[in-house]
Amino acid sequence: IELNGVKERWISQADPILCAADTVIQLAQTHKPKPDPNGLVFGTVFTDHMLTIEWTLEEGWQKPHIQPFGNLSIHPGCSSLHYAVQLFEGMKAYRGPDNKVRLFRPLINMKRMLKSAHRACLPRFDGVELLECIRKLVKVDQDWVPHSDSASLYIRPTLLGTEPTLGVKKPSKALLFVILSPVGPYFSTGAKPVSLWADSKYIRAWRGGTGDCKMGGNYGASIYAQYEAVDYGCQQVLWLYGDDQQITEVGTMNLFLYWINEKEEEELATPPLDGIILPGVTRQSILELTRKWGEFKVSERYLTMADLRQALEENRVKEMFGSGTACVVSPVGRILYQGENLHIPCEGSFPPLASRLLKELTDIQVRHYTHLQHTA
Amino acid sequence: IELNGVKERWISQADPILCAADTVIQLAQTHKPKPDPNGLVFGTVFTDHMLTIEWTLEEGWQKPHIQPFGNLSIHPGCSSLHYAVQLFEGMKAYRGPDNKVRLFRPLINMKRMLKSAHRACLPRFDGVELLECIRKLVKVDQDWVPHSDSASLYIRPTLLGTEPTLGVKKPSKALLFVILSPVGPYFSTGAKPVSLWADSKYIRAWRGGTGDCKMGGNYGASIYAQYEAVDYGCQQVLWLYGDDQQITEVGTMNLFLYWINEKEEEELATPPLDGIILPGVTRQSILELTRKWGEFKVSERYLTMADLRQALEENRVKEMFGSGTACVVSPVGRILYQGENLHIPCEGSFPPLASRLLKELTDIQVRHYTHLQHTA
Repeated sequence: IELNGVKERWISQADPILCAADTVIQLAQTHKPKPDPNGLVFGTVFTDHMLTIEWTLEEGWQKPHIQPFGNLSIHPGCSSLHYAVQLFEGMKAYRGPDNKVRLFRPLINMKRMLKSAHRACLPRFDGVELLECIRKLVKVDQDWVPHSDSASLYIRPTLLGTEPTLGVKKPSKALLFVILSPVGPYFSTGAKPVSLWADSKYIRAWRGGTGDCKMGGNYGASIYAQYEAVDYGCQQVLWLYGDDQQITEVGTMNLFLYWINEKEEEELATPPLDGIILPGVTRQSILELTRKWGEFKVSERYLTMADLRQALEENRVKEMFGSGTACVVSPVGRILYQGENLHIPCEGSFPPLASRLLKELTDIQVRHYTHLQHTA
Repeated sequence: IELNGVKERWISQADPILCAADTVIQLAQTHKPKPDPNGLVFGTVFTDHMLTIEWTLEEGWQKPHIQPFGNLSIHPGCSSLHYAVQLFEGMKAYRGPDNKVRLFRPLINMKRMLKSAHRACLPRFDGVELLECIRKLVKVDQDWVPHSDSASLYIRPTLLGTEPTLGVKKPSKALLFVILSPVGPYFSTGAKPVSLWADSKYIRAWRGGTGDCKMGGNYGASIYAQYEAVDYGCQQVLWLYGDDQQITEVGTMNLFLYWINEKEEEELATPPLDGIILPGVTRQSILELTRKWGEFKVSERYLTMADLRQALEENRVKEMFGSGTACVVSPVGRILYQGENLHIPCEGSFPPLASRLLKELTDIQVRHYTHLQHTA
């Protein structure tokens, strides 16, 4: 399996070391009832434990602690609260039909987390060690991984600057923590293609910014536009960029267009990682999987609203979908652009390529050998 | 005095009401020693008390609490930690030679705070009521306002989304808090003109983003560039924008150029508030004060690196300086641009216009009737 996480083993240069073997485990005395994963709202329920690891400039990474889930005690001058010196990751643990718990390509998340940490001036760490700490945490809360092949346990690593002073600078203190949240099947009520509002009024990311890192500021700044999309009767924002109105991302997902391109080639296309696109794990997996199939051209290339509109007029668009950890793939049905509704083909509400990708990726996620299992 | 805060009294539409009269005061049992303000590093020492006010979607603003300074208890799923749903303000209380404590144009800060709250999808509030809460807090900690006409008490209002779930959405809970920090004279060791690194590699803010709001994400994203400036032997970043390399801001300050412009007019110029520039209180005060003088043209206009370079070649640049709450004005001495050092005239290290502005604004800040005094 090409998508297998263990082939990506990779160690960062890091000192002083974050060491999983030092983990101190303090078990919760009480256990919350586990919810029915069907109908769960994303990220609203958390498990019984959490992982916290402190860092200081003088002493480096302290012992990891797995401890009962609870509030953090944070200095009110903390740089993550004032200057958004913060980043996060999103990944999932899946329980397979064999009752084994697996992570999907977790080292890609660790790598991206280190990239975000570098850009945010937060401390580096050994990604393999952090992953081992996460594995220990998931093991402690393993009963929270839903017994279902469509539900899963969402894993949220977070790294905060906890510098307790108001200068805008590299923090001398940081806190890495990981929380876990059981999540239901994304398409619980059946897949419904999403509608998008495409407008240049708000721009998600720009060259010279932080759009290719998973830093908090990218997300908080996007909420206002999301509500404006809803005001226009759409569900999410189609983020445009530049004078030529490139289509870049959808809501908090990467974007794919499956079409007959301007050269009459069958092509699956997604914007290139040029600094404004988040390097999604699902994005990368879709590119690798479809390239392995070898059935059509697979491209990282620019796509503009003019390209899309012309292709729609000429009936060259086959499918369009977002990709992300939460949904795997999410088909697009309609785009509101310059007062006009552009209808994207959406055969049977979940078109063939999106369906096939959902099935193949989910199958790998729940059935195949991945890093968690490897080191367990 | 045109710069007097009380003329700007302004009330937001706000329900349910944030009500200063409901403030509950719990005094600290112990008092920290007050530091010598000379040589204090900015934002490192905090006073004995803080203000906290909670908000929920269902119940609106709760009673304000003035309580002993201490850590906040924050849910680890809180949206301010993951998605930077957060904003802040910066203002100062000054002790005058008459021993009275004054704020400088605080309602402008309240207005800007509401503008940031709107953009961040955080709750609105009555700015006059919040200011009255801040007045009460400063009164409780009034002995912390330095007995000095060059030191002051920095006031840091902060508003956080405390939504305890991981969906990227408008928070249903929020926390407003205010902390106070005595700060020394900015130019304690004598004024030294700053050196700037001008490069398009990093962009502070962009159209369709949040550069005109005081949201945390703008600041965290800037730290990396600041350290690159230091690597190039410069102290701060001169933020450029666009293909024509407009000069926009300096570090965390607004920017002024005092020059003979391309039409041979004596002009004080600063970039216009077109969405990427923070509407600084000191910026606004400098524009109003110099317009009142009527001695030269005062413009909000675009300025490019090409404009600046040509003007330097033709000896038309008189002064360049940043403006902000921390320093009032901060002269620029050198700009590293495309490998070349551009030297800005800096007579006697603190040039005449910057000196005059520093003197006049400081004089207003420490001597003139302002809002705190008004309602005290």
